[in-house]
Amino acid sequence: MRPERLVDAVLFDTFGTVVDWRSGISQAVAEFSGAVDPDEFALAWRGRYQPSMAPVRSGEREFVDLDVLHHENLEATAAELGLPLDTADPSDVDRLNRAWHRLPAWPDSVPGLTELKRHFIIGPLSNGHTALLTNMAKHAGLPWDVILGSDLLRTYKPDPRAYLGAADILRLPPERVMLCAAHNTDLEAAQQAGLRTAFIPRPTEYGPAQRRDLHATGPWDVIAQDIVDLSVQLPQHAPG
Amino acid sequence: MRPERLVDAVLFDTFGTVVDWRSGISQAVAEFSGAVDPDEFALAWRGRYQPSMAPVRSGEREFVDLDVLHHENLEATAAELGLPLDTADPSDVDRLNRAWHRLPAWPDSVPGLTELKRHFIIGPLSNGHTALLTNMAKHAGLPWDVILGSDLLRTYKPDPRAYLGAADILRLPPERVMLCAAHNTDLEAAQQAGLRTAFIPRPTEYGPAQRRDLHATGPWDVIAQDIVDLSVQLPQHAPG
Repeated sequence: MRPERLVDAVLFDTFGTVVDWRSGISQAVAEFSGAVDPDEFALAWRGRYQPSMAPVRSGEREFVDLDVLHHENLEATAAELGLPLDTADPSDVDRLNRAWHRLPAWPDSVPGLTELKRHFIIGPLSNGHTALLTNMAKHAGLPWDVILGSDLLRTYKPDPRAYLGAADILRLPPERVMLCAAHNTDLEAAQQAGLRTAFIPRPTEYGPAQRRDLHATGPWDVIAQDIVDLSVQLPQHAPG
Repeated sequence: MRPERLVDAVLFDTFGTVVDWRSGISQAVAEFSGAVDPDEFALAWRGRYQPSMAPVRSGEREFVDLDVLHHENLEATAAELGLPLDTADPSDVDRLNRAWHRLPAWPDSVPGLTELKRHFIIGPLSNGHTALLTNMAKHAGLPWDVILGSDLLRTYKPDPRAYLGAADILRLPPERVMLCAAHNTDLEAAQQAGLRTAFIPRPTEYGPAQRRDLHATGPWDVIAQDIVDLSVQLPQHAPG
């Protein structure tokens, strides 16, 4: 890669940063059943996401992928909100669970990534596993160069091994790798691990009432409006 | 993926099947030094490739990636054929060793892969590691969906774990994955592991005097002239 660039690889958080999980999950829930409010269900299902990864991060539980955690969280959310799973066709339940494999991209994602790909290695650095991220990319047209799923490193962000392991697979020093995310805590952990950081806001990720992550709250290397803006700004940044 | 397709993913051997290592290495050797015959050197360097992986496959040696093996094999070949490495700039030696990261594609590779990508998940299933394969794809414009390097499975083909591990990362049963290769022994191992197989000949991979792998020698699922021909044939094949 060209040495005058700030980094060689730009990796992306995916859920929320590149794809709109709330719309995608809400639509899949609505298609599955009319028994619940699909937006409320999507938020509640996603609400169980971070806690469910904690035992894996701490080493208390052996690594299991997001298909497993999403399914456990689906059952708990369904019980809480009264979605009838037991009487449904198991293949329909599986299809609902795999809605996380077919989420829609934000409008700027594909054009921004396509432009960034001309200058940098691009890939997801996500808690999704490789199969999920591959299916997501095929569905949404995400032009990744390489897919670094959580199953390859068998841990979940913000465990520092997730960030350092991704740089190691690419045989790049951490400072030649950037993480782009819409979540300040993800960037904080990436920066502590030695990666470069870029923030983009996704102010409606959690809906119109979102209060978190509306602005950058740390000393990130780049702050951009969206991925297209990042693709304009980043090739101009020299190491310094 | 569509159930009427023969497979969901088509994976490729790379060295020889997708890229022309002999031309690429020969050119890099010629650029490095005029002291040796570059074609002879390329063949001799490659000649040490299979034996160097044997101790890793058998478990006698811990997994090391192809950058390490290529470097050891470069030193041995240089000593054998009289290429002066010790007096060269180490960064030039490193650049020569990394010529395996920037090999040219055969003319049919990019158009054939681009067409296959419309129907299937495509990726390399190579003894190269993920970083090498990512650099190779950027250099040659190979439009992979996903890159499954040998470092992820920590073994080398034809170890059955290499084929089965790739299918497992994609969360696909082996029979929904096809290996395409120009080498009958690779396909034999893939078929024994339960994968589907496609042969394409690369009759000048080893130069005009090549005697091996001029024709398919096994009961492969598909035999094609090249990757463009495979991209025409394969979408027509239904599971039987």
